Amino acid sequence: MVTIKDIANKLGISVSTVSKGLNNASDISDEMRQLVLDTAIEMGYTSKKMKSQDSKKVCIFIENMGYESIEQFGYEIIVGFKLSAARRKWEVTVVPTNLNMQTEEKYDTYMLRNGYSGAFLLGFTLHDDWVKQLNKTTIPTVLLDNYIENNPHVGYVGTDSFEGIDQAVNHLCNLGHKRIAFLNGTKNSMVSEQRRQAFINSMIKYSLEPDENLIRYGYYVPDCAKDHVPEFLEHGATAIMCASDLIATGVIAELTRLGVKIPHDVSVIGFDDLPIASQLSPSLTTIRQDRRDLGKSAFLLLDGLVNGVSISKLLLRAKFIARESTGPVKK
Amino acid sequence: MVTIKDIANKLGISVSTVSKGLNNASDISDEMRQLVLDTAIEMGYTSKKMKSQDSKKVCIFIENMGYESIEQFGYEIIVGFKLSAARRKWEVTVVPTNLNMQTEEKYDTYMLRNGYSGAFLLGFTLHDDWVKQLNKTTIPTVLLDNYIENNPHVGYVGTDSFEGIDQAVNHLCNLGHKRIAFLNGTKNSMVSEQRRQAFINSMIKYSLEPDENLIRYGYYVPDCAKDHVPEFLEHGATAIMCASDLIATGVIAELTRLGVKIPHDVSVIGFDDLPIASQLSPSLTTIRQDRRDLGKSAFLLLDGLVNGVSISKLLLRAKFIARESTGPVKK
Repeated sequence: MVTIKDIANKLGISVSTVSKGLNNASDISDEMRQLVLDTAIEMGYTSKKMKSQDSKKVCIFIENMGYESIEQFGYEIIVGFKLSAARRKWEVTVVPTNLNMQTEEKYDTYMLRNGYSGAFLLGFTLHDDWVKQLNKTTIPTVLLDNYIENNPHVGYVGTDSFEGIDQAVNHLCNLGHKRIAFLNGTKNSMVSEQRRQAFINSMIKYSLEPDENLIRYGYYVPDCAKDHVPEFLEHGATAIMCASDLIATGVIAELTRLGVKIPHDVSVIGFDDLPIASQLSPSLTTIRQDRRDLGKSAFLLLDGLVNGVSISKLLLRAKFIARESTGPVKK
Repeated sequence: MVTIKDIANKLGISVSTVSKGLNNASDISDEMRQLVLDTAIEMGYTSKKMKSQDSKKVCIFIENMGYESIEQFGYEIIVGFKLSAARRKWEVTVVPTNLNMQTEEKYDTYMLRNGYSGAFLLGFTLHDDWVKQLNKTTIPTVLLDNYIENNPHVGYVGTDSFEGIDQAVNHLCNLGHKRIAFLNGTKNSMVSEQRRQAFINSMIKYSLEPDENLIRYGYYVPDCAKDHVPEFLEHGATAIMCASDLIATGVIAELTRLGVKIPHDVSVIGFDDLPIASQLSPSLTTIRQDRRDLGKSAFLLLDGLVNGVSISKLLLRAKFIARESTGPVKK
């Protein structure tokens, strides 16, 4: 096991300087601190604090995702994680991140410097610097909706899109819909790819033809709807499935603007079951992700990783919820 | 919530008779006991004992799998499960099962009659009566290596075959092998299908041609090797990957019987990393499943299901372990 002395020997500096570097002391230069941290990480050093069985400190990093009020996607996830962590007396810090922060400091050195034993990353994409660095990290890390190959210290938690989307397509098929459009979230996101594949699989399963003109990537925001809804209508869509409830609110707004009645003319389905889904008029048929359970499961996974159990994937069931925004196909 | 009184009312019998039926009393007929149990299950009754937060009783059902000595696949899985359960003061009973037992009594009534709050099923296949009944059970149940669609009370725990097999194919490819055979386990098993698909994916990924003559189903026992090894050799195989270490021991025995040297003439790879893998001569290159962690993870999953967290899948990483049974392709 690597000690502070090993780091000091390698750098040819005193143990006390290494200790200052690791503990954020103010009386050494920023360059020296960085050198100490980088060397510690490279040598696989972990502090006593990080390994302690009691009162572990862990971190939730979050970006591109609302979490401050109950209407937002991240809120209940964080609640679920914190509830589970509290039972084990783990201390949880929520840190909003951005690209700048990731450019300024490496993931591993940030974790070591702050004495975090592990982290849960929400809303990150494969383009983020820190996510790229996860290929080699030895710090227990859980990602929502993203998967890192071949690293036993990193796990993926998410909702299994396939069953939920299958139930939604089956529901529309039973209502007589054949021309079903799919408005996806951001391209190059693992979860968008899964939902696209799930949609195509289910269309084929129910002998419906997936039409490339009716399958589009957007973004996980309402605004993306107006770029695609008119095109879907031109191509004869009688139902629009969306990769999130937020996208569905945009689709409903755009259909309303165009004078199209829901569900009389066109049916709409969301994904997530955010609180807004049941409050919309008409209320939104959707596929529920249990966000509190996602948070609890992320904790379970992180706890496993911290204890050397290399969980690679943990997936929750999705639940289809039929409401008013879907109805029989217009004759 | 369904009470004993509800069951009594529905059947038009006394509460005390229902209670006798649920508690295995000897002074009612077998037919009446069965009727009470069936009705209780149908109405969604769960006993206080099953829901108690303390000292839960759970069950490990096991068939088609050795577990009584450390050399056997099931042994460490059960140890891992019991270790995790003990921390939570859950009582674990191991019950060996067979087809007769499953014909005699339904899964749900067996569980209710014995006051089990949940179960972990090892070695079952999709043909087992109890597995077929899992589509509708409301009793928290975890399956090793099998998946039940659309039931939020049932979860699947296993090892992710894809990364492990990918590393194995990559290893053989780097050693110059092109004619790689794959001797699979039992057909119609989910895990056999995954390993077959993983093998084909990786062959294509490394620009090797998967040859149908070199891909065969067998059984998860050594004996199946002699039916296929001669055929693989006729078709020019220079390496044989196996879906389990036990199959690999059969392949090594058959190659030895035929005077084929390992790894000089043919390389062999197993799957599981049972204790025997490192003891064989030559020692077996294989893909490790951490069985103790599988048991721990099964407990985590069952604990989640008991607490209403609908975990659908929990997969562990597989780890490739290079030993002596693989070497450069013969020139």
